[in-house]
Amino acid sequence: MAGNTFGKLFTLTTFGESHGEAIGGILDGCPPQLTLDFEFIQNELDRRKPGQSHITTQRKESDTVKFLSGVFEGKTTGTPIGFIIENENQKSKDYEHLKDNFRPSHADYTYEKKYGIRDYRGGGRSSARETACRIVAGAIAKLFLQQFGISIQAYVSTVHSITLNKKHSELDLSKTEENIIRCPDADTADKMIALIENVRKKGDTVGGIISCVIKGTPVGLGEPVFDKLHADIGKAMLSINAVKGFEFGTGFDSVNYMGSQLNDIFSNEKGAIHTTTNNSGGVQGGISNGEDIYFKVAFKPVATIMQMQKSVNVKGEEVNLEAKGRHDPCVLPRAVPIVESMAALVLADHFLRMNAYKK
Amino acid sequence: MAGNTFGKLFTLTTFGESHGEAIGGILDGCPPQLTLDFEFIQNELDRRKPGQSHITTQRKESDTVKFLSGVFEGKTTGTPIGFIIENENQKSKDYEHLKDNFRPSHADYTYEKKYGIRDYRGGGRSSARETACRIVAGAIAKLFLQQFGISIQAYVSTVHSITLNKKHSELDLSKTEENIIRCPDADTADKMIALIENVRKKGDTVGGIISCVIKGTPVGLGEPVFDKLHADIGKAMLSINAVKGFEFGTGFDSVNYMGSQLNDIFSNEKGAIHTTTNNSGGVQGGISNGEDIYFKVAFKPVATIMQMQKSVNVKGEEVNLEAKGRHDPCVLPRAVPIVESMAALVLADHFLRMNAYKK
Amino acid sequence: MAGNTFGKLFTLTTFGESHGEAIGGILDGCPPQLTLDFEFIQNELDRRKPGQSHITTQRKESDTVKFLSGVFEGKTTGTPIGFIIENENQKSKDYEHLKDNFRPSHADYTYEKKYGIRDYRGGGRSSARETACRIVAGAIAKLFLQQFGISIQAYVSTVHSITLNKKHSELDLSKTEENIIRCPDADTADKMIALIENVRKKGDTVGGIISCVIKGTPVGLGEPVFDKLHADIGKAMLSINAVKGFEFGTGFDSVNYMGSQLNDIFSNEKGAIHTTTNNSGGVQGGISNGEDIYFKVAFKPVATIMQMQKSVNVKGEEVNLEAKGRHDPCVLPRAVPIVESMAALVLADHFLRMNAYKK
Amino acid sequence: MAGNTFGKLFTLTTFGESHGEAIGGILDGCPPQLTLDFEFIQNELDRRKPGQSHITTQRKESDTVKFLSGVFEGKTTGTPIGFIIENENQKSKDYEHLKDNFRPSHADYTYEKKYGIRDYRGGGRSSARETACRIVAGAIAKLFLQQFGISIQAYVSTVHSITLNKKHSELDLSKTEENIIRCPDADTADKMIALIENVRKKGDTVGGIISCVIKGTPVGLGEPVFDKLHADIGKAMLSINAVKGFEFGTGFDSVNYMGSQLNDIFSNEKGAIHTTTNNSGGVQGGISNGEDIYFKVAFKPVATIMQMQKSVNVKGEEVNLEAKGRHDPCVLPRAVPIVESMAALVLADHFLRMNAYKK
Repeated sequence: MAGNTFGKLFTLTTFGESHGEAIGGILDGCPPQLTLDFEFIQNELDRRKPGQSHITTQRKESDTVKFLSGVFEGKTTGTPIGFIIENENQKSKDYEHLKDNFRPSHADYTYEKKYGIRDYRGGGRSSARETACRIVAGAIAKLFLQQFGISIQAYVSTVHSITLNKKHSELDLSKTEENIIRCPDADTADKMIALIENVRKKGDTVGGIISCVIKGTPVGLGEPVFDKLHADIGKAMLSINAVKGFEFGTGFDSVNYMGSQLNDIFSNEKGAIHTTTNNSGGVQGGISNGEDIYFKVAFKPVATIMQMQKSVNVKGEEVNLEAKGRHDPCVLPRAVPIVESMAALVLADHFLRMNAYKK
Repeated sequence: MAGNTFGKLFTLTTFGESHGEAIGGILDGCPPQLTLDFEFIQNELDRRKPGQSHITTQRKESDTVKFLSGVFEGKTTGTPIGFIIENENQKSKDYEHLKDNFRPSHADYTYEKKYGIRDYRGGGRSSARETACRIVAGAIAKLFLQQFGISIQAYVSTVHSITLNKKHSELDLSKTEENIIRCPDADTADKMIALIENVRKKGDTVGGIISCVIKGTPVGLGEPVFDKLHADIGKAMLSINAVKGFEFGTGFDSVNYMGSQLNDIFSNEKGAIHTTTNNSGGVQGGISNGEDIYFKVAFKPVATIMQMQKSVNVKGEEVNLEAKGRHDPCVLPRAVPIVESMAALVLADHFLRMNAYKK
Repeated sequence: MAGNTFGKLFTLTTFGESHGEAIGGILDGCPPQLTLDFEFIQNELDRRKPGQSHITTQRKESDTVKFLSGVFEGKTTGTPIGFIIENENQKSKDYEHLKDNFRPSHADYTYEKKYGIRDYRGGGRSSARETACRIVAGAIAKLFLQQFGISIQAYVSTVHSITLNKKHSELDLSKTEENIIRCPDADTADKMIALIENVRKKGDTVGGIISCVIKGTPVGLGEPVFDKLHADIGKAMLSINAVKGFEFGTGFDSVNYMGSQLNDIFSNEKGAIHTTTNNSGGVQGGISNGEDIYFKVAFKPVATIMQMQKSVNVKGEEVNLEAKGRHDPCVLPRAVPIVESMAALVLADHFLRMNAYKK
Repeated sequence: MAGNTFGKLFTLTTFGESHGEAIGGILDGCPPQLTLDFEFIQNELDRRKPGQSHITTQRKESDTVKFLSGVFEGKTTGTPIGFIIENENQKSKDYEHLKDNFRPSHADYTYEKKYGIRDYRGGGRSSARETACRIVAGAIAKLFLQQFGISIQAYVSTVHSITLNKKHSELDLSKTEENIIRCPDADTADKMIALIENVRKKGDTVGGIISCVIKGTPVGLGEPVFDKLHADIGKAMLSINAVKGFEFGTGFDSVNYMGSQLNDIFSNEKGAIHTTTNNSGGVQGGISNGEDIYFKVAFKPVATIMQMQKSVNVKGEEVNLEAKGRHDPCVLPRAVPIVESMAALVLADHFLRMNAYKK
C-alpha cells in the first residue's frame, strides 16, 4: 500500500536507498522447483550496471546479488526469495550540497514535502538504483516464463532525433546486445552513440524510446476489466524512473487510421486461429491473443545535467546548483533490461493468475 | 484479483454484462459524511450515455443509477455504497449471429479462449457499457475531491486528422460541454463533428485523443516506487476500452528535447515554491508537486464497423460478418467523462493513501 | 481496505444495511463453467433466514437472491457475479427510539464514533443481516469445492449449559438438519430447544458453540507463514457477528496434554500417508494435511434482550432502553450455515491460491 | 498472496529459512519521522532469542538485527525499512537424518507435498525462527503506537496444569519480565518453571496460554464487516507457530452466561462514555470502543520431543525418529514478545486505516 510492492501473485517488494547499506527485495510467489541460473541473473544485472560503457555513468559498482533464502540446492522452494545488493563506491560527499536544495525535475522537493524527511544522498529512494532489484526479480520471472516458451526482448528504437524506423518483425533482435546502445541495427546504433557522445560533451542529456516485444504468450493472460494485460504492463513501465509515455500495438498512431484499416482480421492458419495483422499488439479486450505483444516506452532526458541551474532551497531561497559526480548522458541502454524485467514481472504475475482460475 | 476491483483504499468493484439484468458496483472506502449530489452523479452518467447526440450510437438507455446502501439521509455513512443500473433496450437478437463467431479486434475470441464460455450478447462483460459503473464511482470521487479544491477536466483534443493544437492553459475548459464532441474550441469542434458525420456515413469509425487536466492537487500524492501517481493514472486510462496509449507532461515529445531544455526550474512565487515551466506534468518522482497534472489518452477507432468483414468462427471456419444494431462512429465524446472518472478514482485513492501515512 | 471484501482470489465484496433498499454482493474470481444450482443456493439462504422456527426471530423475510451478472445459461462465466437480496418487512419504526441511543454491547456507539454518522435502523451495516450475502457466496463456494470432493458440515455442539460431548467422528452429521437447533444428536437437540424456549420466555438470550468439519481436502491448502489455512479460517469465523472465540484441532484443550501425548504419528495406510490421530485438526504448519479439518466457534448470547437496560445517549445522558421488535433468543441454529459459508469461502480461496502456484 | 506479507497499510513481508544465510523482512508503510530506538528493538529480540534461560532451548544465537534502509539519522523516512538477521550457530548436521523423514506434528510432510521440495534443515521456512522478523517489525509498531499512548503487554497465564486465575486488571504487569517464564505473579511463575523443568527432564514438552492486554486504544479501530479488529488480531495470533486457539473478551466462557449477564452497560464517567463492565474485550461490532482490549492465545506443546517416535519417510516406509539438537520444552516465555508484536502490527495497521478514512 505504501507503494513498494509490485504484482499480486508473483510479488516483488523492494527496499533501499542509493547510499544506504544495501538495496534488496523479497520475491514472494515464485513457484517451487524452478532452477535458478545465477549466471544469467548476474548477467542481467550487468546489463543495467553503471560504468558498462563510455556512454553511461562512469560510476563503478559490481551490483552483485546475494540470495538469502527461498533457494535450496539451486532451486526455488516456493518460499520467499530474499536478496540484497550491497551499495559500493558511494560518494556521499558529492551530494552534501543537496541536503537543503531541490534539484530541478528531480524528486527532492516532492519527497521533502511528502515525508518531511529524506535521505538526500544520491537521490535516496528516488534513485534509479532501486531498479537493480527489479532486474533480479525480473530475471527470475524470465526464467519462469522461459519454461513456457515466452521470451521478452527490448531494444532502443529512438535516441533524441535518431530513430530506427523498422517494425520489430523486420529486425534481428539477437543483435541488440552487440553494441553499447542496445539498438539491433548497427548503423542506427552508431548514430545514436555519436549523438550521445556529443550531448555528453556539452554536459547535457537526452531521452528516447525503448521498444519491447514479447513472444510466445498463450491466449488468456490478462484480467479485465481493470487488470487488462496492457494496463498492467503500462503501469509497470510508467513506474520506471524518467518514463513519460507508453503505447502498445499501433498506439498513438491508431488515431491516423479508420476502423476498417486497423481491425485485425482473424484467419485460420494451419488449424490455428491467428490475426493476419497485429495492430492490436497482441492484446484484445485486455487479454493476450497469442500474437506478439509489442509496446513502446518514452524516456525523458535525465534530469541531472552537468550545467549550472537555478533552483530553490528548503527555505524557498533561490540558489544556483551544479551537479557533481558521475552521471548518465542517456539512460536508454541501461533501461533496456529494466523494461524487460518489468514486462517479465507482469507476465509471470498474470500467468499465475490465469492458472489460478483455469477450469 | 480477478480484475474487477480498482483502487486500494477508495475501492470500486464492478459487475455486469451489457445484456444481463443490470450492471452495478460497490464503492468501498468512501469516507463518511460526504453529501452525495445525486443530480450531479446522474448528469455525469448522462454525459456518457448512448443516444446523446447524432454522432454517437442511437441506442437509447436512460442509465439511471439506483443506490442501494451506504447513503443515509443524503450522506455517505462510511459503509460500502452499492448501486445498480438496470439494462434496458437491449436487442439481444442483434447479437445472435455472434454466438459462434469472433468479431475482428473485439474480445470475443480472447474471452472464449480464456473462459471457455461467454455471454456473447452485446460483447457481454467486454462491452464498454461497464464503464457506466466507473462513472458513478468517479462522480462520487469528484465530489470527494472537490472538498479539497481538486478538479478534473477532460476534453477531446484530436479526432483522426483534426487536432486542437493548444496547450490546456490556453483553453477555456468551461466550454467543453458546449458542443457534442466535447472539444473546448468551437471551430475545431465543428471540424471534428463534420469528420465524424462523414466517417459514419461510410459505416466506418475513427479514434482520437482525449486530454485531461487536474488542478488543485496538494503536493504529496503518489506512492513510489511502484505506485507512482502517474503510473496509477496510466493504468487507469489503459483499462478503458479502446485505449492504446498514455502520456503525461511532455510525454513522447520529451524525446525531442535536451535535459537542459526540459528541466522544470523551481522558483519562489510569493512565498510558495513552484516550477516556472511544467514539463513534468505535475508529477515528479511519482509524487504530485502541486502544479497542474496533465496527460493524454489515445483511443483507437471503434472495432465495430458497418461493413462486411472476414473472420472465423469457433470451429476455425472462415466466415463473413456484418455488424447489426446501433454503434458509435467515434467514442471520444462519450469517453470524456470516463477519462475524468478514472482519474478521479486514482486521485481519491491516493488522497486517502497520503492521509493514512501523514505524520 | 475498508473491510467489506473477503478473500484474495475467490473474492466476495458485500454491501447493504438491514433497513436499506437491498443488501448484496459481488463474487469476483469464481472460475468459469461452474453450474450454479440455484435451488441449493436458495436453500442455503433458507437455513439462515429469520422466522424459520419458533426458536428464532419471528421476523418474516423471504431472503430471495437475484443474480444480476456472471451467469450465462446456468453456468458461471468467469466474470463477476453480482447479486442482491431485497429488504422486506423492515419495521424501521421499531428503531426510531435508537436514533440517539446506544444499545449495550451493540455496535451503535462504535459506529457513531468511528463514522460520525450511522443508519440506526435495525443496526444498519452492523446487523447480522449482512451475513445473508456471505451465504450466497458461500453456497457457490460449496458448489465449487464439491467438484473436488470437499464437503463442509457445521452443527450446534453447545447451547449454554447443554453440550454434545461427542467427537465429530462419532456423529451422524446427516441428521443435523433434522431438528430446528441443528444438532445431530436428537436428544441433545431436544434439551437445547427446551433451554432456548425457556430463555426466550424470560426475554433473555443465550450463546453456544458451533462445531464444523471439512472433509476431503487435498494436502497443500494454506500459505504460510501468515496466511496459514487455520489462521484464515479463524479470521473468517471471528468476522461473524457475536463470535468470541475460535479453536481448531484440540484447541485450548491442547494445554492439558504433553507433546508426547498430542503428536500425531504418521503411518502408511494402504499406500497413503495418514496420521493415526488427528489432534492437529487437519492442518500442520498452516497447510492442510488431508485429514479432517475441524474447529469450534464460540458465540456469545445475542445482545438484544427483551428487558429494560440502562445506557447512555449521544449526549452522554443516561437513559433506559427496551428492545422492540422481533429478535432471536439464540442465533446458533441460523449461524450454522454462516459458519459453513465462511469456511467454504476460505477453502475456495486457498484452493485457487494453491492452483496458482502449482508446478 | 503467497502468504509472507502481513498488514495492508503497515505491511511486513518476511523471508528466510532457519538454516539459510539470513532471515529478514521489509516493513513498508511505517510513517516517516518516527525515531527508532534501536536498543528497544534489540531488547525485544532478546526477549525472544534462544538460550535466554535454562527453560528454553540452549541454542545460542545473538539475533542481531541490521537495518539496511528506510532509516536516516535515526528516524524513519517513510520508505521501506529493510532488515536482516544473520543465521548463526546452525548445526545443519542435526537435521540430516530428516532429509527424507517426516517428523510427527511438524510441517515436514505438508511442505514436501505442497512444494515438492523443501529445505529440511531446522524446519526451513516452517521454523519458528521466522518470528524473529515479526519481533523487529512489531517493535517498530510498538514505537509507533506508543506516540498515541497505546501499550501492549502479554504474559503467560497458563502452563499445562498451572493457571494464573486472575484478571489482567488484578495483576501488576510490570512484573512480567521479572521471571524467566514471564508470568506477572511470582508464586505462579515458580510453579510453572518447576513444571517445565520436570517436563524437560522427561524429554517431553508442554503448552499453555498467553494472555494479552492492549491499553489506550482510541475508539474506532477496526473495519467491519470482514476486517473486524478482533478478527485481524485473531488471524495474527493463529499465524504464530503452535497456536491452536484464540478468544477475546469473555471468549468461550461467554457460553456460560445469559445476554442479560454479559451485556456491557454504558455509563458516563466524568463526561466520557465508558462501559461499566468489559465482557466485550474492548471491541464492539468489530471496532475498538476505548476499553482495554484483552485476549488469550492457546499454544500446544512443542512437537519436537526428546523421545523416540514412529513416523514414515518420503517413500511411505515406517521409521523411528529421535530428535537431535537443542529444543524448547515450552515455548511460552519466548512467545510472549511474539504475541505482543503481532498485536502491535495489527493495531498499527488499523491505526493507519482509521486515519485514511477519517473525515
